[in-house]
Amino acid sequence: MEDLLKEFPIVVEQPLNWGDMDMHGHINNVWFFRYIENARIAYYEAIGKYEHEQASGTSFVLASTSCTFKSALVYPDVAVVGARIDEILTDRAVMGYRVVSREHNRIAAEAQATLVSFDYAKGEKVIFPEILTQRIHALEGKSYRSKE
Amino acid sequence: MEDLLKEFPIVVEQPLNWGDMDMHGHINNVWFFRYIENARIAYYEAIGKYEHEQASGTSFVLASTSCTFKSALVYPDVAVVGARIDEILTDRAVMGYRVVSREHNRIAAEAQATLVSFDYAKGEKVIFPEILTQRIHALEGKSYRSKE
Amino acid sequence: MEDLLKEFPIVVEQPLNWGDMDMHGHINNVWFFRYIENARIAYYEAIGKYEHEQASGTSFVLASTSCTFKSALVYPDVAVVGARIDEILTDRAVMGYRVVSREHNRIAAEAQATLVSFDYAKGEKVIFPEILTQRIHALEGKSYRSKE
Amino acid sequence: MEDLLKEFPIVVEQPLNWGDMDMHGHINNVWFFRYIENARIAYYEAIGKYEHEQASGTSFVLASTSCTFKSALVYPDVAVVGARIDEILTDRAVMGYRVVSREHNRIAAEAQATLVSFDYAKGEKVIFPEILTQRIHALEGKSYRSKE
Repeated sequence: MEDLLKEFPIVVEQPLNWGDMDMHGHINNVWFFRYIENARIAYYEAIGKYEHEQASGTSFVLASTSCTFKSALVYPDVAVVGARIDEILTDRAVMGYRVVSREHNRIAAEAQATLVSFDYAKGEKVIFPEILTQRIHALEGKSYRSKE
Repeated sequence: MEDLLKEFPIVVEQPLNWGDMDMHGHINNVWFFRYIENARIAYYEAIGKYEHEQASGTSFVLASTSCTFKSALVYPDVAVVGARIDEILTDRAVMGYRVVSREHNRIAAEAQATLVSFDYAKGEKVIFPEILTQRIHALEGKSYRSKE
Repeated sequence: MEDLLKEFPIVVEQPLNWGDMDMHGHINNVWFFRYIENARIAYYEAIGKYEHEQASGTSFVLASTSCTFKSALVYPDVAVVGARIDEILTDRAVMGYRVVSREHNRIAAEAQATLVSFDYAKGEKVIFPEILTQRIHALEGKSYRSKE
Repeated sequence: MEDLLKEFPIVVEQPLNWGDMDMHGHINNVWFFRYIENARIAYYEAIGKYEHEQASGTSFVLASTSCTFKSALVYPDVAVVGARIDEILTDRAVMGYRVVSREHNRIAAEAQATLVSFDYAKGEKVIFPEILTQRIHALEGKSYRSKE
């Protein structure tokens, strides 16, 4: 599992709920988005996104999200979810996720979310905050500046 | 269905989600509490609870809730949910709910919630607001004063 | 709203649950995937997918899904969700969705799902069933054959 | 926490999902029923309920459930949930639950569920299985025979 998630600086775990399985006997697709949301928020906390939001009024909006399902998750098991930044663009970042079954040590899903930098007071998109870019570089141990 | 819900002044409808069925092939128990929450909020709106809360700082806290399951709900169907006040006590009210299957015209569940009158500024229980009692009387067409 | 959904042969409605709003005061992203799942299943029913599945052992697997958020949904409102087939490929189809706010008559989200044709007995992908292609053509009033 | 849960032979943990908080900024009431369902299933596994169900055709039906909320749960935290049998009656058992905040080491909720012993083939209630009563006695380290 460490191998499957070694490129993800943030990893969170979520034991599966029995009741999140649907009639097909595996975890219903919507819950994968709940798992990756938890990883996203853990990532936000790691880079001080909330303090920055308070100080600057600039936050992120979830513009889109997607998930590709690789193998079913079945209770009882633990979803181990990695999060990393895949790209930083002018006014947005793309966060990548990997959901791994702890029981089977295999990938259950790969996912992404596009996070748009947004000034709530102005009601408009803004340049992705430099300070968060720096913290992301520090957390990820690499630079995304060449991406655009 | 009108018969089953005729003693409930507030009635809301919720088409079932396929994905809310669990491995047993019927709506999982937790969603009944979601349905009755919708009915509770519709009741709150009908008696101007939110305006009163804004004006007075007094609101309700969900102190407890319970549900007795009478028959399974299976997608596709519509949960028709009635809400009424069963009792008004010194610092609380008991709201009663009935969940009816529209497809089968039968009771799926009977539920209750105890709502404690709470002053958030003071952080303590308060007397159930007289103005809301009056509006409940008007909505229900009867008085609860003799209950305590 | 008819205008926004006129290119979608299947339309389902889902009144929002108050409790599906998160701390930001709008419907949390995961529930959009619940709404589109309902529309997907209604589409399946319209083309007799379940009968075909019983008869042939061939079904669809949700291979991936994505959603682009256009405007927030806030309780109380009704999510009106359209579903259509965007593409039929060798062993899969892409279903497109549009989620519309009934209250605001505007698009809340655009979404897609890739459905892979799968033979459960053999445990492998199979050619997208001709009979379902024909029913999709009938339902959509157009042909997808030129797509690949 | 050990103190708060020492009378519960089964304890399961569930890290809170951020998205399970509602507009009031605490975990919405419906999720407490998800947490206790997980504890119920862990209890079932501990007493071999599923094997017995397979062998005998006799299972349990969730007849009713209730929850009293003692203190709010706020993300991030872990719900630690204890389950025990409170009573075994002729054709049913009452399972008791305690939900504890790991962060605050305090009780978040007390809950119960009534589980009716049911023969699915006959479609009727049956005597609570003696073998499960014995296993419950072994797990709990006490007898419930005097209860009725």
